[in-house]
Amino acid sequence: MLPPVNLRPPFNITRSSHIRLTVADLAESRNFYTNVLGLVVTEEDGSVCYLRGVQEACHHSLVLEQARDGGTCRRLGFRVLFDDDLDAAYDYFRERDLPAEWVEAPHQGRTLHVSDPIGTPLELCSTMETRPRMHIQFETFKGAHAQRLDHYQVLAPDTYQLCAFYSALGFRNSEYLTHGDTLLGAFMYRKGTCLDLAIVTGEGPRMHHFAYTVSESRDIFTACDFAGNLGYGDSVERGPGRHGPGGMLFVYLRDPDGHRVEVFNSHYQTIDIEIEPVRWDAASLSTNARWGLPALEKWYFEASPFDDVVQKAPETPQNPMTLERFLLEQRSN
Amino acid sequence: MLPPVNLRPPFNITRSSHIRLTVADLAESRNFYTNVLGLVVTEEDGSVCYLRGVQEACHHSLVLEQARDGGTCRRLGFRVLFDDDLDAAYDYFRERDLPAEWVEAPHQGRTLHVSDPIGTPLELCSTMETRPRMHIQFETFKGAHAQRLDHYQVLAPDTYQLCAFYSALGFRNSEYLTHGDTLLGAFMYRKGTCLDLAIVTGEGPRMHHFAYTVSESRDIFTACDFAGNLGYGDSVERGPGRHGPGGMLFVYLRDPDGHRVEVFNSHYQTIDIEIEPVRWDAASLSTNARWGLPALEKWYFEASPFDDVVQKAPETPQNPMTLERFLLEQRSN
Amino acid sequence: MLPPVNLRPPFNITRSSHIRLTVADLAESRNFYTNVLGLVVTEEDGSVCYLRGVQEACHHSLVLEQARDGGTCRRLGFRVLFDDDLDAAYDYFRERDLPAEWVEAPHQGRTLHVSDPIGTPLELCSTMETRPRMHIQFETFKGAHAQRLDHYQVLAPDTYQLCAFYSALGFRNSEYLTHGDTLLGAFMYRKGTCLDLAIVTGEGPRMHHFAYTVSESRDIFTACDFAGNLGYGDSVERGPGRHGPGGMLFVYLRDPDGHRVEVFNSHYQTIDIEIEPVRWDAASLSTNARWGLPALEKWYFEASPFDDVVQKAPETPQNPMTLERFLLEQRSN
Amino acid sequence: MLPPVNLRPPFNITRSSHIRLTVADLAESRNFYTNVLGLVVTEEDGSVCYLRGVQEACHHSLVLEQARDGGTCRRLGFRVLFDDDLDAAYDYFRERDLPAEWVEAPHQGRTLHVSDPIGTPLELCSTMETRPRMHIQFETFKGAHAQRLDHYQVLAPDTYQLCAFYSALGFRNSEYLTHGDTLLGAFMYRKGTCLDLAIVTGEGPRMHHFAYTVSESRDIFTACDFAGNLGYGDSVERGPGRHGPGGMLFVYLRDPDGHRVEVFNSHYQTIDIEIEPVRWDAASLSTNARWGLPALEKWYFEASPFDDVVQKAPETPQNPMTLERFLLEQRSN
Repeated sequence: MLPPVNLRPPFNITRSSHIRLTVADLAESRNFYTNVLGLVVTEEDGSVCYLRGVQEACHHSLVLEQARDGGTCRRLGFRVLFDDDLDAAYDYFRERDLPAEWVEAPHQGRTLHVSDPIGTPLELCSTMETRPRMHIQFETFKGAHAQRLDHYQVLAPDTYQLCAFYSALGFRNSEYLTHGDTLLGAFMYRKGTCLDLAIVTGEGPRMHHFAYTVSESRDIFTACDFAGNLGYGDSVERGPGRHGPGGMLFVYLRDPDGHRVEVFNSHYQTIDIEIEPVRWDAASLSTNARWGLPALEKWYFEASPFDDVVQKAPETPQNPMTLERFLLEQRSN
Repeated sequence: MLPPVNLRPPFNITRSSHIRLTVADLAESRNFYTNVLGLVVTEEDGSVCYLRGVQEACHHSLVLEQARDGGTCRRLGFRVLFDDDLDAAYDYFRERDLPAEWVEAPHQGRTLHVSDPIGTPLELCSTMETRPRMHIQFETFKGAHAQRLDHYQVLAPDTYQLCAFYSALGFRNSEYLTHGDTLLGAFMYRKGTCLDLAIVTGEGPRMHHFAYTVSESRDIFTACDFAGNLGYGDSVERGPGRHGPGGMLFVYLRDPDGHRVEVFNSHYQTIDIEIEPVRWDAASLSTNARWGLPALEKWYFEASPFDDVVQKAPETPQNPMTLERFLLEQRSN
Repeated sequence: MLPPVNLRPPFNITRSSHIRLTVADLAESRNFYTNVLGLVVTEEDGSVCYLRGVQEACHHSLVLEQARDGGTCRRLGFRVLFDDDLDAAYDYFRERDLPAEWVEAPHQGRTLHVSDPIGTPLELCSTMETRPRMHIQFETFKGAHAQRLDHYQVLAPDTYQLCAFYSALGFRNSEYLTHGDTLLGAFMYRKGTCLDLAIVTGEGPRMHHFAYTVSESRDIFTACDFAGNLGYGDSVERGPGRHGPGGMLFVYLRDPDGHRVEVFNSHYQTIDIEIEPVRWDAASLSTNARWGLPALEKWYFEASPFDDVVQKAPETPQNPMTLERFLLEQRSN
Repeated sequence: MLPPVNLRPPFNITRSSHIRLTVADLAESRNFYTNVLGLVVTEEDGSVCYLRGVQEACHHSLVLEQARDGGTCRRLGFRVLFDDDLDAAYDYFRERDLPAEWVEAPHQGRTLHVSDPIGTPLELCSTMETRPRMHIQFETFKGAHAQRLDHYQVLAPDTYQLCAFYSALGFRNSEYLTHGDTLLGAFMYRKGTCLDLAIVTGEGPRMHHFAYTVSESRDIFTACDFAGNLGYGDSVERGPGRHGPGGMLFVYLRDPDGHRVEVFNSHYQTIDIEIEPVRWDAASLSTNARWGLPALEKWYFEASPFDDVVQKAPETPQNPMTLERFLLEQRSN
């Protein structure tokens, strides 16, 4: 059901580390991320704002880049352990005729831009500037004082195919979602928790959401309450609720440019290779737990495009149980 | 806007105290209330089950009575302070040609059955048998280990009229909901917090919900999680969310007979008479806070009938912003 | 064991409402109460600062009054329900040759100063100016964002005698602490929860502590963490821990003038008159729960004097199990 | 200040995984760990009980082994990633004339017993039997429903020396504690959070404590409350409090044989190699945060011996600021 994993991968990606988003109004986006999620501004100027969670020592996990229209995702960043992992990565992508290019990226060590086989633009580096963690500076906390970036979810036209690519890079599945023989969702990790990269079937590649952890159940509500009080009440798109896969509490917000960000409480630990991934069988894409209404149609179908990347639809269109469809079916019963 | 309050009422109702519901399957309902809400069984036999919250010292706050079809509410119970308040109450109702009748009620002191002007059946008593509070017997806790019954909400065809009746009995409004000059919701209390009796416009009298407190935000999720794990996932009807009026976190569940029970975290203190009730202006009945999807149509329109009580529709039918309507309007934009 | 309670008292005290403390450095005390406890400043000038909890609608529950040396308590404030309760109170105290005097108190309605038989200076009023509650203005919260003043504890040379005085005013015991036939602690309330006034045996009258509620367990830690980060780490005197009587989580802090303030999570509901007070038998004054080290000696013996009030020692000196004594006894075993 | 770390270690230890303790009364110890900490029994017979946390998929993280006197620690278990890491480990220890021996261990794959240079007995394996995680089986939770084993703390006569040994195996310091030029505490990890192995100066090798995570602040209190209610109130030895290093909330309990177990909420993420360990300078061994009383003398000096391992005292005896000394010094001021 799942593609084979290369447990001794050609280079060592250690974790998802930072995401680059374009935004139409930098001040507005900064307000959302600092006052609702409670991220800390590490550094900023008129065109870019670098943010991190209160537990993070690295310079940035979220980079907001001013752009005319906003609403696109520029890069998903991953860390590799050593500098020479970057060279191995460069060779690996080049050998497969995939884009690979050295770039300068402020506040990061040597940085490599690559793309996976469906065009998802990635950014690899092995070091960043560091700053003191703020996790016990309680008096500086704002909003949900999110702790750290945890993972990304991308939509891909063929989940199995993309899962196989990342499996060859050492990503393992903690859990996965199937319908019959079809892999609909792959919840993949490198860092020893449930997730670094979730791949879900849909027109793609697109960035469906990125996720920050909060420390306690209560902070799921905190994120909502600050959103509501600060004028972002409509941004609460789905939840609060609990996921089946992973089992964590969540809420999804849409930022001022429509980028979707998840706030959730913490995952279990993975690490050991003998543990089998947990399989969830579902007629559709849902990650609903055992209670709660289905997600809105837009939660399934809207996502941030990557700059200048061509998207492709899945061969079999998805027909998830959206809230809209659920209510129609209820009514006709 | 609000009817005058009699601050020196003819008899002293102190709080909402117990509710009598009919249920079709006593074992099933007992399972729901003990294992999801975490109520404690004080006493039971084959036809009735007496339950209380973990903080409660009185014999029962919820009485489940086996009945062929279940799904009706028999009585809303209120406590009066002294035994002679019962006599004053008897006279008060008789003088107004309202039903008033002495009855025997197990585990309660002298008990009086009365009905308000729209026929809501009430039960007044001044004492009950007592039991030790279980609030620090943590090792006995189950489910959301709900603390205590807090309030009822009834639907009434004319909120102002019924609010006036209870105002004459000393009930004050903590908050209220209006549309223009029309009172749509009256959030009334006797016990020094926000609520003992909420009155909301709708076909009635019907019991819309009754509510138990939980101690912390997390237990809002606990109620949902136990519901989901124990086969009652579909019973989670609305929420988790936050109310505007009152400002508390909530979730609404439907019990096996369709009775609606709210679980919420605690209210602020009222008591002082110079504090003005908080006014909320709304185009409809919603008690939504600043975030979260609207409630389902059934949350607005379904409620438990009282046994043998004739219902009446409001003169102006309510047309609340239901989730169903909201999604249709979103789609057509 | 307990003195009789007058359930139809001569005037209606409804709750503990505000405390007046002298402080040597108003700015420093303001900093402590706003940034550690998270109280809201309603109004202030160079010599007085009026504060309230985030759930409170009345103008002040804590009044800090600049005075050369600070460290004294000027008055314990109680609310009565009606203005004519004040007149009844005036007569009641005068008839018993106890001090009673009308005063002007800013931001309060008609105000009466009285003293109980051991000289505790009280302040009664029936109204205050009001302000909007801040309990859902999450974005303004600071520190432990304490909700509301809950109770005072006074030390008295004869607990039974003072308990009898307040019982005649309608105060009931929720719980009490005895050693053999001696009443060591009386936990008395008017407002329908566990406490408005705790009376504990000791040299007095002195104000042992006053207490604010917080909404959740976590905020017990929040108070400590903000104290620690803002330079008041040494002010954490006892706890976090759990009380036996009442059963709530607590921590005690000392403010910059040494006034002791408790932060605790919420109490159970009382109200009904048939419920028997809970008796705790103890060899000494401890209110320890079933775990945790004993309190420091100073927790038992230090307290704020009332301005110009003569103190008296109990006939039998108390010899509580202090932490100091406990460790000595452990060592010698 | 810190010894060099071998970032490409000879074999890959991934995490602390299980601890073997002797207990005098298996039923009593089982009661403590299942009902206070809330560990799950995976398997047991009359002489051994295998337990795991609710988030753990591996067969055991705590092994209780019946032994006449109890109170000793038999082994600290670590996982390696691959089976061939075990062979590399065997060679590594043998080459250094350190004990290394293949053993049979039920429910584990190939298992290697080794000892570090001061004699700490370790157990390495690369696989275990697995079981379903119980983390969303809320209805089965007991006590503090601890999530997973996180780390061990050992006392060692020379912290720097032992830290150097583990640094050569790829353990890095998240934080460390010094007095002048002397390393007093090394907080070392492999798994990408703060800790797998803490080394602190003291007579050793001895097992000072092992630690399980809980999900939220509230569960720190839950552990205490269940301990208190189930007859283990005196087992609460230190806390609840907050650590300086690591910054987490904690409480320390002593089990029926005197083994010390810590319950704490979660750590921050480490992983990246460019982040400098955080240095704490202290006159003594304390890991106190910014508030809270010092730990009892026994917290510093009592620890579980390893079976048949000779202990050695540090060259310079430690003189930490114990609670006992603190109170004496306070008194003499």
